[in-house]
Amino acid sequence: MLNEQEITARLAALDGWTREGQAIVKTYRFANYHETMAFVNAGAWIAHRADHHPDLEVGYNRCVVRYSTHSAGGLTDKDFACAARLDALFAA
Amino acid sequence: MLNEQEITARLAALDGWTREGQAIVKTYRFANYHETMAFVNAGAWIAHRADHHPDLEVGYNRCVVRYSTHSAGGLTDKDFACAARLDALFAA
Repeated sequence: MLNEQEITARLAALDGWTREGQAIVKTYRFANYHETMAFVNAGAWIAHRADHHPDLEVGYNRCVVRYSTHSAGGLTDKDFACAARLDALFAA
Repeated sequence: MLNEQEITARLAALDGWTREGQAIVKTYRFANYHETMAFVNAGAWIAHRADHHPDLEVGYNRCVVRYSTHSAGGLTDKDFACAARLDALFAA
């Protein structure tokens, strides 16, 4: 599990992610439902590959992604690595 | 928009759906992430066809579905019709 100093440093290296207790959260926005669902599925593929599954809130044109490492009871490098991979996917 | 009596009657005809303010909500549970994502996508297809999009909370082995007709400011027949279609999909 990362300590507060490590969390602060890793958050600063990401764009648009915020701390929410033992999780990090970002809202991605899309043009329409098709685009939203395509992102949800691409994100699910990353979750499979990383064996690390975020909680998602899916609306018509937005997806809120929330990463936490429940097994560790807090934030780990895995959460920040997956967050960076989702950002790369979004920017692709 | 449906009145309270109509909402109560339509809720009674469904299984596992509960009222939550101006929405109806149900939690579907699955064996694993693959199954969860397959349901999310089948549900998205229904949302496309009905042009009525629920809010979803997607976790590893569960999906919370929340229907409301935002344009009407409350619950309509469309919400209950889509809820029934999702239940049929889940039972398929």
